[in-house]
Amino acid sequence: MSKPYVRLNKEDAAVLLVDHQTGLLSLVRDIDPDKFKNNVLALADLAKYFQLPTILTTSFETGPNGPLVPELKEIFPDAPYIARPGQINAWDNEDFLKAVKATGKKQLIIAGVVTEVCVAFPALSAIEAGYDVFVITDASGTFNEMTRDSAWRRMEAAGVQLMTWFGAACELHRDWRNDIEGLGALFSNHIPDYRNLITSYTTLTSGK
Amino acid sequence: MSKPYVRLNKEDAAVLLVDHQTGLLSLVRDIDPDKFKNNVLALADLAKYFQLPTILTTSFETGPNGPLVPELKEIFPDAPYIARPGQINAWDNEDFLKAVKATGKKQLIIAGVVTEVCVAFPALSAIEAGYDVFVITDASGTFNEMTRDSAWRRMEAAGVQLMTWFGAACELHRDWRNDIEGLGALFSNHIPDYRNLITSYTTLTSGK
Amino acid sequence: MSKPYVRLNKEDAAVLLVDHQTGLLSLVRDIDPDKFKNNVLALADLAKYFQLPTILTTSFETGPNGPLVPELKEIFPDAPYIARPGQINAWDNEDFLKAVKATGKKQLIIAGVVTEVCVAFPALSAIEAGYDVFVITDASGTFNEMTRDSAWRRMEAAGVQLMTWFGAACELHRDWRNDIEGLGALFSNHIPDYRNLITSYTTLTSGK
Amino acid sequence: MSKPYVRLNKEDAAVLLVDHQTGLLSLVRDIDPDKFKNNVLALADLAKYFQLPTILTTSFETGPNGPLVPELKEIFPDAPYIARPGQINAWDNEDFLKAVKATGKKQLIIAGVVTEVCVAFPALSAIEAGYDVFVITDASGTFNEMTRDSAWRRMEAAGVQLMTWFGAACELHRDWRNDIEGLGALFSNHIPDYRNLITSYTTLTSGK
Amino acid sequence: MSKPYVRLNKEDAAVLLVDHQTGLLSLVRDIDPDKFKNNVLALADLAKYFQLPTILTTSFETGPNGPLVPELKEIFPDAPYIARPGQINAWDNEDFLKAVKATGKKQLIIAGVVTEVCVAFPALSAIEAGYDVFVITDASGTFNEMTRDSAWRRMEAAGVQLMTWFGAACELHRDWRNDIEGLGALFSNHIPDYRNLITSYTTLTSGK
Amino acid sequence: MSKPYVRLNKEDAAVLLVDHQTGLLSLVRDIDPDKFKNNVLALADLAKYFQLPTILTTSFETGPNGPLVPELKEIFPDAPYIARPGQINAWDNEDFLKAVKATGKKQLIIAGVVTEVCVAFPALSAIEAGYDVFVITDASGTFNEMTRDSAWRRMEAAGVQLMTWFGAACELHRDWRNDIEGLGALFSNHIPDYRNLITSYTTLTSGK
Amino acid sequence: MSKPYVRLNKEDAAVLLVDHQTGLLSLVRDIDPDKFKNNVLALADLAKYFQLPTILTTSFETGPNGPLVPELKEIFPDAPYIARPGQINAWDNEDFLKAVKATGKKQLIIAGVVTEVCVAFPALSAIEAGYDVFVITDASGTFNEMTRDSAWRRMEAAGVQLMTWFGAACELHRDWRNDIEGLGALFSNHIPDYRNLITSYTTLTSGK
Amino acid sequence: MSKPYVRLNKEDAAVLLVDHQTGLLSLVRDIDPDKFKNNVLALADLAKYFQLPTILTTSFETGPNGPLVPELKEIFPDAPYIARPGQINAWDNEDFLKAVKATGKKQLIIAGVVTEVCVAFPALSAIEAGYDVFVITDASGTFNEMTRDSAWRRMEAAGVQLMTWFGAACELHRDWRNDIEGLGALFSNHIPDYRNLITSYTTLTSGK
Repeated sequence: MSKPYVRLNKEDAAVLLVDHQTGLLSLVRDIDPDKFKNNVLALADLAKYFQLPTILTTSFETGPNGPLVPELKEIFPDAPYIARPGQINAWDNEDFLKAVKATGKKQLIIAGVVTEVCVAFPALSAIEAGYDVFVITDASGTFNEMTRDSAWRRMEAAGVQLMTWFGAACELHRDWRNDIEGLGALFSNHIPDYRNLITSYTTLTSGK
Repeated sequence: MSKPYVRLNKEDAAVLLVDHQTGLLSLVRDIDPDKFKNNVLALADLAKYFQLPTILTTSFETGPNGPLVPELKEIFPDAPYIARPGQINAWDNEDFLKAVKATGKKQLIIAGVVTEVCVAFPALSAIEAGYDVFVITDASGTFNEMTRDSAWRRMEAAGVQLMTWFGAACELHRDWRNDIEGLGALFSNHIPDYRNLITSYTTLTSGK
Repeated sequence: MSKPYVRLNKEDAAVLLVDHQTGLLSLVRDIDPDKFKNNVLALADLAKYFQLPTILTTSFETGPNGPLVPELKEIFPDAPYIARPGQINAWDNEDFLKAVKATGKKQLIIAGVVTEVCVAFPALSAIEAGYDVFVITDASGTFNEMTRDSAWRRMEAAGVQLMTWFGAACELHRDWRNDIEGLGALFSNHIPDYRNLITSYTTLTSGK
Repeated sequence: MSKPYVRLNKEDAAVLLVDHQTGLLSLVRDIDPDKFKNNVLALADLAKYFQLPTILTTSFETGPNGPLVPELKEIFPDAPYIARPGQINAWDNEDFLKAVKATGKKQLIIAGVVTEVCVAFPALSAIEAGYDVFVITDASGTFNEMTRDSAWRRMEAAGVQLMTWFGAACELHRDWRNDIEGLGALFSNHIPDYRNLITSYTTLTSGK
Repeated sequence: MSKPYVRLNKEDAAVLLVDHQTGLLSLVRDIDPDKFKNNVLALADLAKYFQLPTILTTSFETGPNGPLVPELKEIFPDAPYIARPGQINAWDNEDFLKAVKATGKKQLIIAGVVTEVCVAFPALSAIEAGYDVFVITDASGTFNEMTRDSAWRRMEAAGVQLMTWFGAACELHRDWRNDIEGLGALFSNHIPDYRNLITSYTTLTSGK
Repeated sequence: MSKPYVRLNKEDAAVLLVDHQTGLLSLVRDIDPDKFKNNVLALADLAKYFQLPTILTTSFETGPNGPLVPELKEIFPDAPYIARPGQINAWDNEDFLKAVKATGKKQLIIAGVVTEVCVAFPALSAIEAGYDVFVITDASGTFNEMTRDSAWRRMEAAGVQLMTWFGAACELHRDWRNDIEGLGALFSNHIPDYRNLITSYTTLTSGK
Repeated sequence: MSKPYVRLNKEDAAVLLVDHQTGLLSLVRDIDPDKFKNNVLALADLAKYFQLPTILTTSFETGPNGPLVPELKEIFPDAPYIARPGQINAWDNEDFLKAVKATGKKQLIIAGVVTEVCVAFPALSAIEAGYDVFVITDASGTFNEMTRDSAWRRMEAAGVQLMTWFGAACELHRDWRNDIEGLGALFSNHIPDYRNLITSYTTLTSGK
Repeated sequence: MSKPYVRLNKEDAAVLLVDHQTGLLSLVRDIDPDKFKNNVLALADLAKYFQLPTILTTSFETGPNGPLVPELKEIFPDAPYIARPGQINAWDNEDFLKAVKATGKKQLIIAGVVTEVCVAFPALSAIEAGYDVFVITDASGTFNEMTRDSAWRRMEAAGVQLMTWFGAACELHRDWRNDIEGLGALFSNHIPDYRNLITSYTTLTSGK
């Protein structure tokens, strides 16, 4: 049966980073903290590398949820930054919605904390609004695996495509020849095993 | 592809708590007892907080299945309480069905013990009857993960939305500004990590 | 969205037990042997209790796959028993197919070893032939969880309903009042926790 | 509900082995290395046994990704071998596409490293192009289970059938009588438990 | 370094079954109920088979802890049965201690529920009293693996030998020739995989 | 071999609660937050119930480590409370050491966060100082299971006895008849399965 | 504290392979079959490579336990082979004991099936007899992890050193310069990751 | 029982980093690569922070094992660096041994790849030579958990103390007041949860 392949396209994709805040991160227990930090920063580096329009948003950042992790602010100093005054679903916030529309993109790459709320709610709203939605599962975290599993199934049933940052990078890049160095650096910085491969390789081929 | 987002709405939702009985609870082994108790009470507090019509039902409560856990009876002293004389699927019980219809709600939030029977059967019946059904996965328990997984898939295939109590609370509340204290208390009482965030925060900001 | 609930009906169901052979059972490693043996016998007792027409079949039983486990033969001494000469998919065997048709039932409850072959193949064939198919996941076993997961997804995508023996028993029975003793005995014999509940209960209420 | 059973057919199937390279294999951590090696070689032996047209391809094999594992090259000395100069999705490579079309087959059996990229991308493209796609999950590997799970769901949602090498072998063979020795050898060489069954059996029956 | 092997000896061993009560069993979650039930009955059958003096004891059996599981009472109708009025450590009960001494054995095989209390306390007391103590780990259960692990370490540090029922049976039997049928039956009744081996074997060798 | 059983004695035991602070608790990932909170409060209730002298201490509580969890302060309003100005090993703090000595007890029950530092360091120091040390493993938490395992082994090798709060309660109580109500309440409040047993029991026996 | 390092020495070591029989292998479930087969053959190749005297023994090989796996017989065609008529502990068999003594070695490397019986019993006997005993844990298998854990602890407490085949190979070899090719081949044949490293390396350095 | 607390002392400790090479790292599968990389660098930063003499060594670094990971070389540009020509146990290399002795320290902190060989061998040798040995378990890696467990037990039985980098840092530092900033930075750089606590804290207290 023939079915269209809805494929990430770097000309038509924007990234939404939702509520990666220092307090909320202490709630994330379905993924190891070292790995999760790495994945979130990898997604951020990916967005920057492909020059995808990126939107940052937080929930109640002056309260217990805490501020946005500083690294994200540093990577995207000029990105739209919507500190939501109360809306739990970022899509309910007009400024956020405006920022999304302003990107002019049809493909939305979403990640955030916690998965079943801060990610799933805008993902479901975006699907309803006609966008193609790609949730980056490994840069999104939540309380435990049972919760994550429920959230993934709900999003999947609605038509969300579940991907990881590595898959997204590869689908956006299409061909290594577009920039070997750049993609290699992204992988080397965020995949220790890949870095090791490169080190072994360059050591052997550089005459050392 | 555009697809409507079937979203929990506190004006249009009722809660069905099915067979959380002291005997049956000893069968639950797909989730830790401490966590499960907390989740069930969190769902109950959620229902009370949002003033959702709530229906309690039990199966054979004078036999080995045991009585309803007393905490639920205490939280909902005036809720319809249907001690079913034999029907395994609560939906097959006329009094239960009447109580559901009497709520006048279209969205049903269901949790119970055990997942593949006491939850799945009325969930499937309710879907057939045209309701929107949201199963609270983490306030429902069963024999083991293999059983749970089968049950989730069967319900999902029928159109049930799988959620957790935290996700449901957030979707019902919509905006923190509707009542910061109230939602914060619900989370603080049932999420130790969130309570810690709040304690740290208030300690620092209250001048201690 | 309204969707019919395809519900097991004891008047319209037959059971197919496929290749529970002593040799093949040594391949099963996605479920503990004690538990698996119990589940298979529970399903057999269920079939007998509800007087569902039951068909036994084996693959190459005179070779390394080994004979049918003797307990199943003993429980169903008069059931159709098709020792297939070579067909891997039981549905490809004419005698088997005739036996299925001879039951006159529209709902097929299937379990066997190994899940992705002996269960999935006839399940997919039966769906194609217009039957309602219910696979008893916990009375079916295979090499490992990765294999099981693939098999479940393939069957699910084709419209198979995944259930466990306990869920099937409850859906077939409908109402405890149809026979409290009988269903209680089935559970007591195959669910240690339930047996303990009953023992505690009867000890306390019988004056001991 | 009646639904056609899209069944592997040895007259109409081809095998695509994508990027099983020595460097990339060090990234695979969702499956044990001993088991993974065995599964990949089992799939290769299967392809050879059923004389399915097989295509080998690699990504950047002169760089850190490393060469194709030598065993695959040895098993298929005459197979089309496409060392892609840069395309991440093999389907984007014209030579690969030509090789696929040249097989004249409609059913594609795909496995590779890593699952969410080297397998999922061509699988999704092939579905779009009207092929029936069967991904061999246990001969495909990736970074971790979270990634694998996302990849499986994305492919499944697009209509890919998830299978394992053992299930594929059984579905292709149809009937043991087509060649007992051959299929038995395939299983004996790649399933230690099955080999043990055969050894026990032949020892007892050969008079030893 | 030479060190004496303290080996179970059927002439010098007694079995203590501590608090396998229907209520307490619902607390056991470090081992699957099907398997645990099987292990406890296997240990009981072992004791009977080797004619080891066996002592039964319960804690507060008329309260929520519930009665002894009936199967144990049936297997040992004439064994000393001490329903302790309150002592948590069975060794603190004089009748129990007298019964132990009356066996005249120096090796004590202990199992019970829950591991860190009902097993560990008398085990530690017995070590202090100069007995050789063998705890049957797989016929003892408790709340979770963390608790079990702590309990095992505490007993091990005190000199308790940790064994399973199968290991104990083999060490007591010493030589298959002492009684092939008897030991074979014990294994066949409690090890499904072993039963399957025997069935395959006898089918092939009996000419069937 | 005879070896003395070093047994908890309520006349001779004190409890040290080390660094259960709201910030540090976010580091604990080797045990589920719901369960861990319950265990810590259970240990506190145990200390109060047996009237064991209890000492509270914190590390840098005005910094990121956060304040002591309020519940502990409330349970022990008059306990010695040592907010350490910098010593990581509480035993290095003179006030803490004085408070320990002031209890006049020889048995120290220790729990805290994180296990390998805040628990292990004072435990090792106390052993060196000649105390009998009992670490409550399930009321102590740390980063992950690998860390916990290392910490347990180091303490065990030094002679620390590893116990859980439930085991400690039972060993301190010795005999149910000392106070059935009190111990039952402690268990009912902190063990959901036990509470269910009691509810089932009292419902049946109270005539209801 | 100074303590002698009891180090494997290829001049002073013998290998005992106990009961790796085709029937008994179906009981092994604490390690994956693919990996286990590989480990057993790796140990055998190790023994052959270092020319360590090796003894094969089986238990009741004409019954359900099945014959020795043929690969071991092939690797050691001339090794002492003791088919024990009934002794469960191989050390109780005089021929076995004579064969052990005939090696003239003081260090015994033992592996077998199942761990808590066929391995632990002769290991404990050998310790008692004054040998240094090294159990190869990953070439020994048993029913489940709980059983394995008990067996390891019992052996460890008696002074057995627990090692894996890889560790043993490295300790025996001492220095790569003794034979780079030989040790490399052993690793390449039994460690897929190592083989990949070697393939990558030789491809790059050979000019290809 | 009184027993001396062998406590890490920054005046008397040296660090040995053994074989953290790019090729060998691909063998490590008992710990996640992101976390492992972080732990190794944390240990390196710890060594530098406390100015502990540090020794680097590699095994066959010009072959498939690959070069030392460049980060370690960069952190310790002037450390003794022993590229061993063949000795598997670093302690067998005279230059390494001289370097160890030259530190003049009695406490050795060891980590490396793989645990049961590159760590365990020198650890056992160092114990024999009279050193106090502390193995950093979470900066050491190996093939799988079974192997790790065997290695830990062997080292533990010989008197090695098992610690993690965080525990070592705390034991070396003794008192936060020695340098709050420095230790805080070490933790913030390598513990994401701790970094989040600090960010939340400083945001709230700095007036932002």
